[in-house]
Amino acid sequence: MIDRNEILSVLSRYDLKKISIATLCSHSSLQIFHGAKREGFRTVGICLADRVKYYQAFPEAFPDELVVIDNYKDILDDRVQEQLIGLNSIIIAHGSFVEYVGSKNILDLFYVPMYGNRLVLEWEGDREKQFKWFEKAGLNFPRIFRSPDEIDTYAFVKVYGARGGRGYFKVSSREDFYKKLDEKIKAGLIGENEKLVIQEFVAGVRYYPHYFYSQIYSRGLKLSKGGLELLSIDKRIEPIDEVYRGYPDIIPDYLDYTVTGNQPVVVRESFLPQILDMGVKLVESSIELFPPGLIGPFCIETVYNPRKGFMVFEVSARIVAGTNLYPEGSPYTPYLFREPMSTGKRIAMDIRVALEKGIISSLIY
Amino acid sequence: MIDRNEILSVLSRYDLKKISIATLCSHSSLQIFHGAKREGFRTVGICLADRVKYYQAFPEAFPDELVVIDNYKDILDDRVQEQLIGLNSIIIAHGSFVEYVGSKNILDLFYVPMYGNRLVLEWEGDREKQFKWFEKAGLNFPRIFRSPDEIDTYAFVKVYGARGGRGYFKVSSREDFYKKLDEKIKAGLIGENEKLVIQEFVAGVRYYPHYFYSQIYSRGLKLSKGGLELLSIDKRIEPIDEVYRGYPDIIPDYLDYTVTGNQPVVVRESFLPQILDMGVKLVESSIELFPPGLIGPFCIETVYNPRKGFMVFEVSARIVAGTNLYPEGSPYTPYLFREPMSTGKRIAMDIRVALEKGIISSLIY
Amino acid sequence: MIDRNEILSVLSRYDLKKISIATLCSHSSLQIFHGAKREGFRTVGICLADRVKYYQAFPEAFPDELVVIDNYKDILDDRVQEQLIGLNSIIIAHGSFVEYVGSKNILDLFYVPMYGNRLVLEWEGDREKQFKWFEKAGLNFPRIFRSPDEIDTYAFVKVYGARGGRGYFKVSSREDFYKKLDEKIKAGLIGENEKLVIQEFVAGVRYYPHYFYSQIYSRGLKLSKGGLELLSIDKRIEPIDEVYRGYPDIIPDYLDYTVTGNQPVVVRESFLPQILDMGVKLVESSIELFPPGLIGPFCIETVYNPRKGFMVFEVSARIVAGTNLYPEGSPYTPYLFREPMSTGKRIAMDIRVALEKGIISSLIY
Repeated sequence: MIDRNEILSVLSRYDLKKISIATLCSHSSLQIFHGAKREGFRTVGICLADRVKYYQAFPEAFPDELVVIDNYKDILDDRVQEQLIGLNSIIIAHGSFVEYVGSKNILDLFYVPMYGNRLVLEWEGDREKQFKWFEKAGLNFPRIFRSPDEIDTYAFVKVYGARGGRGYFKVSSREDFYKKLDEKIKAGLIGENEKLVIQEFVAGVRYYPHYFYSQIYSRGLKLSKGGLELLSIDKRIEPIDEVYRGYPDIIPDYLDYTVTGNQPVVVRESFLPQILDMGVKLVESSIELFPPGLIGPFCIETVYNPRKGFMVFEVSARIVAGTNLYPEGSPYTPYLFREPMSTGKRIAMDIRVALEKGIISSLIY
Repeated sequence: MIDRNEILSVLSRYDLKKISIATLCSHSSLQIFHGAKREGFRTVGICLADRVKYYQAFPEAFPDELVVIDNYKDILDDRVQEQLIGLNSIIIAHGSFVEYVGSKNILDLFYVPMYGNRLVLEWEGDREKQFKWFEKAGLNFPRIFRSPDEIDTYAFVKVYGARGGRGYFKVSSREDFYKKLDEKIKAGLIGENEKLVIQEFVAGVRYYPHYFYSQIYSRGLKLSKGGLELLSIDKRIEPIDEVYRGYPDIIPDYLDYTVTGNQPVVVRESFLPQILDMGVKLVESSIELFPPGLIGPFCIETVYNPRKGFMVFEVSARIVAGTNLYPEGSPYTPYLFREPMSTGKRIAMDIRVALEKGIISSLIY
Repeated sequence: MIDRNEILSVLSRYDLKKISIATLCSHSSLQIFHGAKREGFRTVGICLADRVKYYQAFPEAFPDELVVIDNYKDILDDRVQEQLIGLNSIIIAHGSFVEYVGSKNILDLFYVPMYGNRLVLEWEGDREKQFKWFEKAGLNFPRIFRSPDEIDTYAFVKVYGARGGRGYFKVSSREDFYKKLDEKIKAGLIGENEKLVIQEFVAGVRYYPHYFYSQIYSRGLKLSKGGLELLSIDKRIEPIDEVYRGYPDIIPDYLDYTVTGNQPVVVRESFLPQILDMGVKLVESSIELFPPGLIGPFCIETVYNPRKGFMVFEVSARIVAGTNLYPEGSPYTPYLFREPMSTGKRIAMDIRVALEKGIISSLIY
């Protein structure tokens, strides 16, 4: 694992008056570029050669500089990393960046300064560690079955690396687990010996609140260090969400949890304290587990069950694609900011204020 | 019941240059405070002690003054009421305010000037009276079964005091009614001798249009007195709305109608005349039934059935939580106003214009 | 069919400094008028007499001039057409305009200058031709069964003239087809000898992307001629979308595909290249099939199937009602424009720029 001091030494050679905000052209990059431009930053897009023209179709979010690559692994090449460093780039890592480059590769081989705390990759990417984090935070989360033999009720099965929901399935028993796993392997959706996580199935309404935590500047809930803002909430749209329109026989195509898009939602105002509390718990435990803990945007994937309240399924310790609904602000941001505010712009604002205060290194690993 | 003259006499002692807009910190209060601030009003939040910090997390909607209480019934205390009066408060009553304080208590014991016509509480809170109102208005609404013995088709059962949908259930027969009622009572969701309303079940798509009626100033549809605006529309999100993702066996947790949040929608433009007409009918009949009738925001809970058209289930004679989707305006408000407009801000605008015209008492009871 | 030169000859008598933007008061007319006003145009509403007051309820979208009619066929009257011409009107044809006046009538009898390429009516209105267009464009679309006897899997049955989804139904077999068709005819939803289209049923999530193609001025994806913008995306709301809330026995009312409204959505950013590509293919093939091809707004009705990707069901070669969600812009327009931008306003901008460049005739047929 690259030591933080090594990264900060790269940062120390940056021209802080010419910082660029850089990310991979995918996931939430339009929002990130758009927000960074609005905050006055130069932007750098790492872009697959055949995708450039599609990003040109959105000129107000098109990066000022392009680093064109042929495949995602090129991001680890010295040539690419040096080019990014030469542009004084601060990388914003979104879900696709982490998935395509790989957590371990980022930790071991990617030495360009990144916004946020790189250590979170270990706690987010490893589902065992993620559940330890939830325990430490005191969050309510569904029971985990360590082995298929432990399955004693309806359960939900996920692959380890998120993968946007592809290959997920629900099961009613141990037998059902093996039967469906076999089908998924045969369909090429899950690898032969792939690590899986089996969680108790919890009924309820899904809500994905988008938080922003900053020790630099915050308009939100005051914590011992910094503050926590609730920027927005979404609900994800998966093929299963239209299963009621189909026939049982052709349901296989609908029994799919790939996240295809998002829709905007708000929650009852009386749920906001619980939602904020979940965020607080996650932030405070993160500071203990991997100091300085969470930095910037994160999302908690919840289900609201009428008997159990909010149950936590997963955390995404970075900007999530659901924030793409709100490039000019959400139903919550007007209560925090007078100007239009997206999560992408909020990240850029965090960096801008840190630069102004001369403490940019505190946001970087 | 407190006489309106008594309330107006309290108002007459107000310093009209220093009016505050006050409400209970819950339901739609962020929107109400945010809108009132934008219209230049001082704001007063009646807030449970342990909720203050969560409201501080939204500084652009945080009230200028706080009246901290330990439980909702404190609102009726003279100390609290005098404090509100001392701040020249006009109370905006939202659904949680009415539910927690109680309609009867508001009518008999709460003497702080409130925006709107307090008499509507009697017509809205009593479901029998609400149906009389619908009949008078000539609205289409589902058949009511006066007793479980009358149930001759699929029906929907609700408790009397709304309660955010908690404890509601649908039944297929008289027998099914008694069986499910028993379950709900055992689960503590419905009281032993609680009053219930049994309505015919009508299939269709739910739409909740949000109206604003004003005799002070209106940009909307001209009526004999005043005008009616359609400000926005939402659809509510309840656990039942994800039932298709589950298993029949664990469905009990999904068979729940608690309103957990809202999503934004628009209707086909050719439905707007019908939607406006429903609002007109409700306003005009309200003027006859309890003059001066409805004042300000209200919502009609409808289902669009492809054979029957719009069927009305309920009316909420005040700001509804679905308007929380639109703190900066909805897909309809740009057709009414050039500036960003929420229902919360629209209320404050109504009060501001009435103050400017010297007729604030016409909005108060 | 009226020759284009005849229309251009009408246009040549227009006072180009006093162009009006005109449409029928229905469908998306509020958005069209609102956008045209924002771009500085005079607006003309063709309005049923009993609908005028409902349009007055939206003053910022109320047309400057009204042409009042008693029924839709009056639009073809010389009196109405001359009145529109006298006001230097450019007609924006939306779905209701086409449905109520009739494609053939528009082509043969309506001589007022219209925005866009009238020839598209032939390719859009005739489903056989539409599928030929899809084939030419190389789009993925579900198999078509030329006769009920060909039905060998689940299928979806539509009437020819869109009709907002009314009367559509899905079938599991040839027998099921005849049984359900009979029911629909008896219910008066489908005519005795009405032309139908039978498509293979494809499971997945519906997405309706809204495009804008212009050879006059475009901020979007550069094509050989002009550019293509993705302005927004919606999902339609039909009674079937709440079928899970009901009982099988009363399901008939839910088994209805009438479009009642729309909800806002975004797709994963990595789907945008595919979505833009579908638009490009449709535009480029349209230029070959009916030059100058598509002009202005259009929508592709898609389903995202996890195995097959995006499948195309239909194209609407004009402004669709789903754009009504975004009168001040969508989650995509801030990446294209710095100002609030609706599809209605985008049309007006296209006309304005064409007028400024002296090439308005290129947008007209």
